[in-house]
Amino acid sequence: MLKNLKRVLIGRPLKNEAMGKEQFGIIWGLPILASDAISSVAYAGQEILLVLVPAIGLLAFKQLTFISAAIIGLLILLTLSYRQTIENYPNGGGAYIVAKENLGIIAGVTAGAALSVDYILTVAVSVSSGVEQITSAFLPLRPYTVIISVAMVALLMVGNLRGTRESSRIFGIPTYAFIVAILSMLVVGFMKYKGGYVPPAPTVKSLGEPITMILLLKAFSNGCTALTGVEAVSNAVPNFKEPSTKHARTVLLLLSVIILVLFGGISLLANIYRVEPGKEAMLIMMAEQIFGRGFMFYYITVTTFVILIMAANTAYSGFPLLVAVMAREGYVPRQLRMRGDRLSYSNGIVLLSTVSALLIVAFNANVSSLIGLYAIGVFISFTLSQTGMLKKWIRDRGKHWFPKALVNGVGGLATAIAVVIIAFTKFEEGAWLVVILIPLLVYLMLKVKKHYMSVRNQLRIPPEELDKIEIESDRYTNRVIVPIESINKSSVRALRFAKTIAENIVAFSVATDEESGKEIKERYSKLKTDIPLIVKYSPFRKVVEPLLKFIESAEYDYKKGDMITVILPQFTVSRWWHNLLHNQTRIFLERELLKHKHIVVAVMPLRLKDDKATESGR
Amino acid sequence: MLKNLKRVLIGRPLKNEAMGKEQFGIIWGLPILASDAISSVAYAGQEILLVLVPAIGLLAFKQLTFISAAIIGLLILLTLSYRQTIENYPNGGGAYIVAKENLGIIAGVTAGAALSVDYILTVAVSVSSGVEQITSAFLPLRPYTVIISVAMVALLMVGNLRGTRESSRIFGIPTYAFIVAILSMLVVGFMKYKGGYVPPAPTVKSLGEPITMILLLKAFSNGCTALTGVEAVSNAVPNFKEPSTKHARTVLLLLSVIILVLFGGISLLANIYRVEPGKEAMLIMMAEQIFGRGFMFYYITVTTFVILIMAANTAYSGFPLLVAVMAREGYVPRQLRMRGDRLSYSNGIVLLSTVSALLIVAFNANVSSLIGLYAIGVFISFTLSQTGMLKKWIRDRGKHWFPKALVNGVGGLATAIAVVIIAFTKFEEGAWLVVILIPLLVYLMLKVKKHYMSVRNQLRIPPEELDKIEIESDRYTNRVIVPIESINKSSVRALRFAKTIAENIVAFSVATDEESGKEIKERYSKLKTDIPLIVKYSPFRKVVEPLLKFIESAEYDYKKGDMITVILPQFTVSRWWHNLLHNQTRIFLERELLKHKHIVVAVMPLRLKDDKATESGR
Repeated sequence: MLKNLKRVLIGRPLKNEAMGKEQFGIIWGLPILASDAISSVAYAGQEILLVLVPAIGLLAFKQLTFISAAIIGLLILLTLSYRQTIENYPNGGGAYIVAKENLGIIAGVTAGAALSVDYILTVAVSVSSGVEQITSAFLPLRPYTVIISVAMVALLMVGNLRGTRESSRIFGIPTYAFIVAILSMLVVGFMKYKGGYVPPAPTVKSLGEPITMILLLKAFSNGCTALTGVEAVSNAVPNFKEPSTKHARTVLLLLSVIILVLFGGISLLANIYRVEPGKEAMLIMMAEQIFGRGFMFYYITVTTFVILIMAANTAYSGFPLLVAVMAREGYVPRQLRMRGDRLSYSNGIVLLSTVSALLIVAFNANVSSLIGLYAIGVFISFTLSQTGMLKKWIRDRGKHWFPKALVNGVGGLATAIAVVIIAFTKFEEGAWLVVILIPLLVYLMLKVKKHYMSVRNQLRIPPEELDKIEIESDRYTNRVIVPIESINKSSVRALRFAKTIAENIVAFSVATDEESGKEIKERYSKLKTDIPLIVKYSPFRKVVEPLLKFIESAEYDYKKGDMITVILPQFTVSRWWHNLLHNQTRIFLERELLKHKHIVVAVMPLRLKDDKATESGR
Repeated sequence: MLKNLKRVLIGRPLKNEAMGKEQFGIIWGLPILASDAISSVAYAGQEILLVLVPAIGLLAFKQLTFISAAIIGLLILLTLSYRQTIENYPNGGGAYIVAKENLGIIAGVTAGAALSVDYILTVAVSVSSGVEQITSAFLPLRPYTVIISVAMVALLMVGNLRGTRESSRIFGIPTYAFIVAILSMLVVGFMKYKGGYVPPAPTVKSLGEPITMILLLKAFSNGCTALTGVEAVSNAVPNFKEPSTKHARTVLLLLSVIILVLFGGISLLANIYRVEPGKEAMLIMMAEQIFGRGFMFYYITVTTFVILIMAANTAYSGFPLLVAVMAREGYVPRQLRMRGDRLSYSNGIVLLSTVSALLIVAFNANVSSLIGLYAIGVFISFTLSQTGMLKKWIRDRGKHWFPKALVNGVGGLATAIAVVIIAFTKFEEGAWLVVILIPLLVYLMLKVKKHYMSVRNQLRIPPEELDKIEIESDRYTNRVIVPIESINKSSVRALRFAKTIAENIVAFSVATDEESGKEIKERYSKLKTDIPLIVKYSPFRKVVEPLLKFIESAEYDYKKGDMITVILPQFTVSRWWHNLLHNQTRIFLERELLKHKHIVVAVMPLRLKDDKATESGR
């Protein structure tokens, strides 16, 4: 039944050969990789104003324009930088690969950790913001914000477990719908203003503080969230159809142009309509002023909601791929490397969903709380990626290396400054958590790598030693111990099996009292066999300890190097609930015995017939 | 660490020989077995008044006296009956054994199911009532009622897992303290009244309804809860020191006298002081009137609280013993039969605690809600037990059989009438749940028995066939398959082990593409071995299906009857978190393979060294 449910939700398994078909071109690649970056225009402006308005009142709207200009400048730098990255790294991996190759392991792992944290926050922030839009338009839904948000994460998880091609189809359309929505709002908004419309006077309450540098930097930090997601394209180059590099560069350029127009436009429009953000989402309030509560109002609400939910989907394209790359190199558990039935990296998808759902619950799906943690991770990876590119240009010195190095150098410097600004201005609001978390993750990742290296070294046989290895070796002698509880068909079967795999066999039984010990000896003596039976008395009701004690005792002439196979029968029952009726001591026993490297546990299945069948056939 | 915690809570393991010392005489046997029955005087009177007062007002207090008299009559009948049962069934088991031996399996299992349900309710009701007493005296604790109640259940669980002797010590003293408390309240209460004290006029509000039969029967049903727990003594005869029958009979008699005095006394006292039960516990309100808020008030509050918590302990003596007896006969999962480290029936104790804690949470620790489910179970078992005794007398016709049969017959009839009364009057308030639950449990118990019988029949070797069984049989041939992922020390070790247990060996590998298949073949070819390597290609990323397909294919010349041993290596790691870094595919593989009765899974441990150790020793 669980299997069927999985089939319905996830779809039938796909073969490895189906892989090629799951890639995308420009038309579908743009919306699926850009939705994060594009959708952030829905909250970036609002979060800038939320810092400024309470402090400086109406002056905030003017400052918004300047801060937006600075952020757009940063966007242009990033676009130029990342177009160079895409060209030089057609296999994707983004900041992690670039930093690792050029700056070394620590830098690479740091970039990987920072990006992972940021992907998780992208899901939490985008989903929370999306749900905020809808609850701004439909106030009765407000109390269910957290539940709706978590449900959305679950939906994204299922959608992505189905695989990348289908997700681009599902998740592509809303991006276009959103672009159309905001463009129409910009056009109608400006026309209405030119037509002589006077927006209602804003009822802004402020502390009348002076415009300080720290205030502007705080606002700038919040605005930086508009740039998260830009790196998604360079991470996902191999997800594009051939020629993938060209496709990716084109998508990145289109993406930047779209952000520039939408983010810049919204900032200018906010300066005209001066809605006060706070209780409700700014975009929704602006749409209400411009269109009234008509079709376009609901169209904007719904597309903004949907694109924000889908923006989280960018993280679903990026995170599993990133951790799969890192898993292949041994920095994170290798389970994250495996593709599931539908060729998506299922474990990565489930991990991302779980952690971000927990974050949403912990932060009550509040965008302004989550935003404190956001952006710092992605800006660290921006910086490392571009510093890596800079070093590459200086080292390789190819054609036109200097202007290229300059682009990456300036980009790296700018984003490094942004990291410092964000870390300082948002420290108390949550950045401290990320500042602690990223080094911790780096430490753990290096530990994990060390473990895998250690295992590999313990198991590895170098090619030159292969032909010295003799399988036909007599250094192992196998002996068998058959623990028996009573003389029944199961124990007879185990004893017979023992005969086929060794010469040296012992049947072993633990009795809690003299009487039961005598009984088992008597019944055993009637069997035609030369296998000796050892009966031990134990006041405790356990088998493991007497068995291990016996193996170590002089009575059992164990020679070092011999293997001991312990045969354990295991019922396999016809109804699941029958399992509840049998001791699961086999599993416990197995675990205890396997702690000893010279003991092999052979589990012998014993298929029980249906209760009905035996009754009639008794 | 978990083990240490367990040691501290539960104590060191006891040997089987320590068993004798864990039994009790009259001094400790009375409080441990009687606390349920005795403590119910704390709520029985109150629950009678809670039915009567809202309907008929002050008249209720007079009716209380009549109803209490009827219940005391029933108590006397039960005591006489159960003294006969104890004498005839010195091995305990109570209603379950008596009904099964005399009335057949269905009746016995029904009694067992009914008693089990009642034990669980005893814990829920007693603990809830105990906490009600304390929150009546200390009102600020009221909001934490449910949490405190569940904590008390946890405490009882730990206490009982430590074993029966210690529990009798811990739980014995409060029973005596409670008896002293109530007796002093009775004495002082009556003296104060004789001394001319006039209690404040009761502020009873009532609907002024007529005194109907149905109303009195409802009140009677609630009062019947005072009799639950009387059967505990007869169930626990083997827990007494020798002569156990005599000790048990004495304890039962003492118990009845104590209930008679306390319950009767409280009813008469309530008629004088006329406190209105409802918001707070009646006993606590009476104590306040009689003693004021002085030492005796708190002494009564605390001892009542403690005895009610400890009353639940009666169920902890009864339930695990009952289910252990039923488990021995195969009606409930046999895990319930086993004694734990401290010789208590650990699984039964944990089961009882879990279910009753769930009930407390579900019913919000509200005594009046739980009382609707209560008493019906125990009265069913009373009826079956005494009908069983009646049948026994009629069948055996020993000395003085007629008066004895008369005692049990009248007792059985009276309790049967009580069952009908309770089921009808409390049907809507929860009795319906029990009326459904008990037959359902009986059905499940018979199913369980059938399964165990079926297993037994499948495994059993009759004594006369034992000497026909030849272990030295060549009907089994063992073959080995060694699945390998790559050629490393682990797979070499598995192949070497294979050589020691069979002639017919195949190494088996699944490759996802041509390249990796070629690589493994090449490396394998360098090994000095005659074991053939089979490489299969699978577009899916799984081993089980290709392996099973191979076994069934013509390529593998499997002969029916042969056993196939599949060797699976299992890492054992030095740090628990290392487990997270390795696929647990072995467990999945093992489960799938064991579904085939001709496949044995041999798990080969591979102890990994510490990461540090290998690094230096590389």
